[in-house]
Amino acid sequence: MSVINEPVQEDLDKVEDRLRSLGQVDFPHLSELLDYSLKNSGKRIRPVLTLLSGKFYDYNLDNLLLMATAVEVLHTATLIHDDAIDNSLVRRGSPTVYKLWGAEEAVLLGDYLFAEAGALTASTQNLRAIKLFADTLKTISKGELNQAFYAFNLEQGYQQYIQRVSQKTAALFSMTTESGAALSQAPEESIQILTEYGHNLGIAFQIVDDILDFIGTEEELGKPVGSDLAQGTLTLPAIFLLRDYPEDNPVRKLFSNRDGLDNIKLAIEMIRNSSIIDECYQIASDYCAKGCRNLKLLPVNASRQSLIELADYTVSRKR
Amino acid sequence: MSVINEPVQEDLDKVEDRLRSLGQVDFPHLSELLDYSLKNSGKRIRPVLTLLSGKFYDYNLDNLLLMATAVEVLHTATLIHDDAIDNSLVRRGSPTVYKLWGAEEAVLLGDYLFAEAGALTASTQNLRAIKLFADTLKTISKGELNQAFYAFNLEQGYQQYIQRVSQKTAALFSMTTESGAALSQAPEESIQILTEYGHNLGIAFQIVDDILDFIGTEEELGKPVGSDLAQGTLTLPAIFLLRDYPEDNPVRKLFSNRDGLDNIKLAIEMIRNSSIIDECYQIASDYCAKGCRNLKLLPVNASRQSLIELADYTVSRKR
Repeated sequence: MSVINEPVQEDLDKVEDRLRSLGQVDFPHLSELLDYSLKNSGKRIRPVLTLLSGKFYDYNLDNLLLMATAVEVLHTATLIHDDAIDNSLVRRGSPTVYKLWGAEEAVLLGDYLFAEAGALTASTQNLRAIKLFADTLKTISKGELNQAFYAFNLEQGYQQYIQRVSQKTAALFSMTTESGAALSQAPEESIQILTEYGHNLGIAFQIVDDILDFIGTEEELGKPVGSDLAQGTLTLPAIFLLRDYPEDNPVRKLFSNRDGLDNIKLAIEMIRNSSIIDECYQIASDYCAKGCRNLKLLPVNASRQSLIELADYTVSRKR
Repeated sequence: MSVINEPVQEDLDKVEDRLRSLGQVDFPHLSELLDYSLKNSGKRIRPVLTLLSGKFYDYNLDNLLLMATAVEVLHTATLIHDDAIDNSLVRRGSPTVYKLWGAEEAVLLGDYLFAEAGALTASTQNLRAIKLFADTLKTISKGELNQAFYAFNLEQGYQQYIQRVSQKTAALFSMTTESGAALSQAPEESIQILTEYGHNLGIAFQIVDDILDFIGTEEELGKPVGSDLAQGTLTLPAIFLLRDYPEDNPVRKLFSNRDGLDNIKLAIEMIRNSSIIDECYQIASDYCAKGCRNLKLLPVNASRQSLIELADYTVSRKR
């Protein structure tokens, strides 16, 4: 990521400073929660996307920094709620807020962070970015509700998977790029190109996340392998396994019994030993290519090159 | 309430229509959740406040309706999260979203409604209202976190109670009146008068809510009597009971054991048979009077009269 981040590294450092400064509130316990949840542990891909997307036209750096901070705060809030909902104990190799402070505080901290992200976005005074922020949070919540509603349900195919991923992951990715473009006076055509890039990159990113949940190691993932299946979430590799083995299938058994560590292990093994992983990677690559296809119409600069490299990284990353 | 609502009844009907229309989404399960949670069951005090506060100067009705809808949606979202956090099964005499669909869906539905409220606010295109919305949600979450953090903690006095109530209840009340005023081109002085009115009314409203939790009936409250104590929340009547009986006190015993239906019953009885309820009502009345004292500086109209009557209603209501 460090090569990709290069054109915006200085700005990204400022975003880190701002994320840290959000913990300075007049309620020590809340400070502790904020410091813990906003500390530098993720890849910060979303703020990088906002910053890179904002560097093609006439940008106001302060507004870009506000927005880049906002998207990371929004992302953090969704993770904290996800972990509380899924009773997840570990994320990125560290105990979750849910594990350390319980569901009650995780829900309220997430609410606080949604509001903080909204306040940061409002500070840009850009009505398009503000509207986009609210609509994106609606879309993400809808996608998460869809996932919850269809937990342990086998009647889900490729189309429904892509629709859900578009809502729960790609909506935020396309918000990062659209807002960066909108905050830098980009012409509408360029905003559309960057929005489309973000959307497709987001789908690819989630597909790879879902692949890694089957082929990664617990150390790489920072959480147990096969977490999605354990939570009843049918992701692309599992959907393809059901397609290839419609009758005698460990996923089918797992979803019927709602309990079966052996079935998870067997499903992981079957998927690893099949061509399903290659097939999923191919689909992710196709989405990346689709997202990048019009980037050449943007002005040539270091950010454009980084966006292309970020697409490659999305597919090749191990965590 | 019907006399109080009279100057804005027509607008309020439109807010009801808009609340109903929010359930029209392309995901039937989400529609069901939205219809259930936004149906007309509450008093709609918050939208009434926005509408009344918006009628003194040059208002755009559509923006007022958007904002009035937004404040009710925001309020609903906070209730849904509260119920999930407190494991509350009944509210306003009906099963909660938590009870019917579980904590996971309650958290995600609340998130969706926060976003919907933000989207409605953004549609006013009024930057002050938008900033106010985000800041208010931050304040509410901070107040709720404070309440969670100090659950079953006896070291809380009058000042801390008022501070928490200012955050978790009065912030939303003052947002309703400030936004109504700001959306109607009110001069800054008038915005301040209405903001102060909302803030003080909100504190009074919460004090009365906390009184009713001790003196109401389960039927009036739509939930069990003594719920606050059962959840470890120290409200004003209990704080005064601890002041009057510092040593041998059922609240002290309840908070030490975290289990004791008998202690809740005893605390209710002691509070009912003391002058504490009168004392709390006096404080609520004082806040109402403080909130109303500058209303006379506003233009004379039916809304002004309704705001004064609403303050009286706040103290005299039984549910």
